Amino acid sequence: MSGKSTDGTVVAGVDVGGTNIEVGLVDGDHEVVAREKAPTPTSGPDGVFDTIAELVGAVGGDPVAVGVGIPGVVHEGQVLTVPNLEGWSAEVDLVGGLSSRLDAPVTLGNDANVGLLGEWVAGAAKGARDVLGLWMGTGIGGGLILDGRPYEGSRGSAGEIGHVLVQPGGALCSCGRRGCVEAYAGRRMMSGAASAMVEAGWKTHLFEIREDEDKPRLTSKVWATALDEEDALAEKLVGAAVEHLGVAVGSVVNLLDVELVVVGGGLPEKLGQDLADRVEAAARPWMLRPEPHPTD
Amino acid sequence: MSGKSTDGTVVAGVDVGGTNIEVGLVDGDHEVVAREKAPTPTSGPDGVFDTIAELVGAVGGDPVAVGVGIPGVVHEGQVLTVPNLEGWSAEVDLVGGLSSRLDAPVTLGNDANVGLLGEWVAGAAKGARDVLGLWMGTGIGGGLILDGRPYEGSRGSAGEIGHVLVQPGGALCSCGRRGCVEAYAGRRMMSGAASAMVEAGWKTHLFEIREDEDKPRLTSKVWATALDEEDALAEKLVGAAVEHLGVAVGSVVNLLDVELVVVGGGLPEKLGQDLADRVEAAARPWMLRPEPHPTD
Repeated sequence: MSGKSTDGTVVAGVDVGGTNIEVGLVDGDHEVVAREKAPTPTSGPDGVFDTIAELVGAVGGDPVAVGVGIPGVVHEGQVLTVPNLEGWSAEVDLVGGLSSRLDAPVTLGNDANVGLLGEWVAGAAKGARDVLGLWMGTGIGGGLILDGRPYEGSRGSAGEIGHVLVQPGGALCSCGRRGCVEAYAGRRMMSGAASAMVEAGWKTHLFEIREDEDKPRLTSKVWATALDEEDALAEKLVGAAVEHLGVAVGSVVNLLDVELVVVGGGLPEKLGQDLADRVEAAARPWMLRPEPHPTD
Repeated sequence: MSGKSTDGTVVAGVDVGGTNIEVGLVDGDHEVVAREKAPTPTSGPDGVFDTIAELVGAVGGDPVAVGVGIPGVVHEGQVLTVPNLEGWSAEVDLVGGLSSRLDAPVTLGNDANVGLLGEWVAGAAKGARDVLGLWMGTGIGGGLILDGRPYEGSRGSAGEIGHVLVQPGGALCSCGRRGCVEAYAGRRMMSGAASAMVEAGWKTHLFEIREDEDKPRLTSKVWATALDEEDALAEKLVGAAVEHLGVAVGSVVNLLDVELVVVGGGLPEKLGQDLADRVEAAARPWMLRPEPHPTD
């Protein structure tokens, strides 16, 4: 696919995920006019910078600016911590590393925050005043629009709904604590649970599907295919993820009285509105005031 | 006690609690120059209006305005729901009911929200940008200052940290759900648990202290006295309250990245900084980023 702008001016948006890096070329009407993607290198920051530069080149269109969303804490332009990428152990100067490889100015934000910003400016949350964004990917990310503007918190790390506790002392999370919602609903932790259950004798097609589709891990597409086939283990784990996401969303709605919850990320994109509806149904019994404004 | 202003202009602040109604006369320097209190009538709104009017009269000082904090949802000047007061079942026109009994203009807010507003304007949270207020009383209330201004949510009911879930499916809460932090740390639920444990054979001095102090229920003072006496049951229940408050505070700090948590209400006023320190110690292990700004 090659990029073509509608009015001559395009920007590139880069989504750095735990599994893939995806670049979209966006025109002045907020339409994505071209996309490219590649697996996320596991060799650390330099490999990621190279891949981003290659993808921006491949997508074409000569973007006037490049915006990068990264799954970690971003504060004053620096990447502070990136728990879900291999080889990112210390502070990384992503803007500097990319600027030397690209001809356009580079800006940076937490992926969940900039993802919700996009939905708020031009997507599902347009015009809303108080919004929670819930992103299901390798981990569980989140973003907040509160009182009509993006909310980043005192150190730039607000929105971490993935580490809202839903079963304190329960399942081990990638952060080292027990019982965060990410421990039940993040794809990495769900894959670990699937492997452990297979070792314990459970049957599933998840790993055959992964091999058939030539994937290095249990991607969202693998999970979606397994659900299509009514794989019992996949249904059990996605069901548990939804139940625990419902608890976290219920807690957040009670605390923040948001009017809208936007659900996005790899698995929701594959499963569509059905997954958002399931999360809403799981959250509603926990909400203090489900009326008069339903969330969806 | 009689009210005396330092510059001639005073306002009256009214705290309507589940146990007591307290009126303070406040001067232009934010100093409380007189106080009066009385038990909260259980006969419904009219009894409460009468008691407030009597207390405002008793406190004296001819206030130029009366501000009321009420333990319920306040939206556009109306009291929508008041879960912790007896006889308040429907929408109540508190401003109208009080205005007919008082000579000063009356304003109204949720008690937790206006309590935090006071701490932010003139108290423990002065100058902070992102703050959680946590009030321990008959129930558990909360308020939020986010991005340098009070945050009320889309329907005026933000800040309900009492109904953040800490053990979904666990202890029954006054809201009818199971596992809210209020089910473990609200004084009404703690009293219920104490009664049930005594029926089941546990020993405690809580109920003797209540009789000695001639209190109609297990007030904060009764709990504080029992803790002073190292009453094992009181210590167990307060310990469980602190542990569960720690989980809720941890979840909220992870979600909102607040820089400060202010702990207030009846029991914290009796127990002082020690209780705030215990809540902080219980919350810290659940925080994704306990550094660099400690909460207290």
